[in-house]
Amino acid sequence: MTGPTRRGRPRSGDTSDRRTAILDAARSQFAARGFAGTSMRSIATQAGVDVSLISHYFGGKDALLVATMQLPVDPVEKISDVITGGTDGLAERLLRTFLDAWDPHREVFSTLIRTTLGSGDPHAPLLQVARNILIVNVASILEGDDRDLRATLVASELIGMAAVRYVMKLEPLASAGPDDIVRLYAPGIQRLIDGSVPLT
Amino acid sequence: MTGPTRRGRPRSGDTSDRRTAILDAARSQFAARGFAGTSMRSIATQAGVDVSLISHYFGGKDALLVATMQLPVDPVEKISDVITGGTDGLAERLLRTFLDAWDPHREVFSTLIRTTLGSGDPHAPLLQVARNILIVNVASILEGDDRDLRATLVASELIGMAAVRYVMKLEPLASAGPDDIVRLYAPGIQRLIDGSVPLT
Repeated sequence: MTGPTRRGRPRSGDTSDRRTAILDAARSQFAARGFAGTSMRSIATQAGVDVSLISHYFGGKDALLVATMQLPVDPVEKISDVITGGTDGLAERLLRTFLDAWDPHREVFSTLIRTTLGSGDPHAPLLQVARNILIVNVASILEGDDRDLRATLVASELIGMAAVRYVMKLEPLASAGPDDIVRLYAPGIQRLIDGSVPLT
Repeated sequence: MTGPTRRGRPRSGDTSDRRTAILDAARSQFAARGFAGTSMRSIATQAGVDVSLISHYFGGKDALLVATMQLPVDPVEKISDVITGGTDGLAERLLRTFLDAWDPHREVFSTLIRTTLGSGDPHAPLLQVARNILIVNVASILEGDDRDLRATLVASELIGMAAVRYVMKLEPLASAGPDDIVRLYAPGIQRLIDGSVPLT
């Protein structure tokens, strides 16, 4: 931890200025070109820093995307913890982690969903997190056919639950306890993860 | 027939005028008071018609709500067909009917979701349809515990799928064929419908 805090009037050349310049450049490029169309190098150029400094401060491009959003929760860290445990019981861990992380910040998440879906912007940050962090990571550990489609459907279940609980606030889901949601919702998600798909 | 119609000066007694007056009154009351807070009687009073005329033209209050939305698809009719078949294979019928109905009108549905979630309005029409038509009807045929919560979670899965497919347009779900979606997504929804919920 070398840098000063981010408020006040930092001296020139100071860590905080460079971090801010990187975040500003990243935010504007992600918004204009999307996650896939933005490179660490192009951000470094715009921010006037060496590209290695971005890795040093933020790690990878996904962590940088998340940093631009100033979220109260770090989805990269959360998802990587959940994924590390493998597919066994993944639905339950995913759902419980999601609820534990977002229930205390439901207004933030509600605003994120509302602005993401309301804007119709294909480069909206939440959309990029869903695609490049949630779906990519889940798909990476699935086995069997249709991994990408199954991972996208897992994301659909989480996004739908969040939309109904936090934004639409439909009861009894809006007030249900996390344990009940996990108990009822996780088995269906797990079935999608396992890829055992006999039709009824 | 006591009151005047609300716009223009139509000839008295014209069917089309009376339908329009009822729809105008219904739209304004659903928007101001929500579905539960609006009665057929209060709509009749505002429209200046006898309450029996509303039933005659539109059937019930739910059908009237849908009529105010001028949708290309009639969710009341679709859901009632799906529900009539009982819980056996319900997830597959629900999902297939949903996709068949909305895939050809994906832009309409996308706009509905965007305006519903973007507005934050607790009386938004799509929200009222989800709650008073989809969830209520599904809950009515579920067995076992937690019916209302399970029905709300079934709605979450449909809403999430629609949000990701039509609004966020995340691939490969955005372009996937209905058969693949039904094959992969229906079993998890069916599990929620059946209420067999052993944890993994």
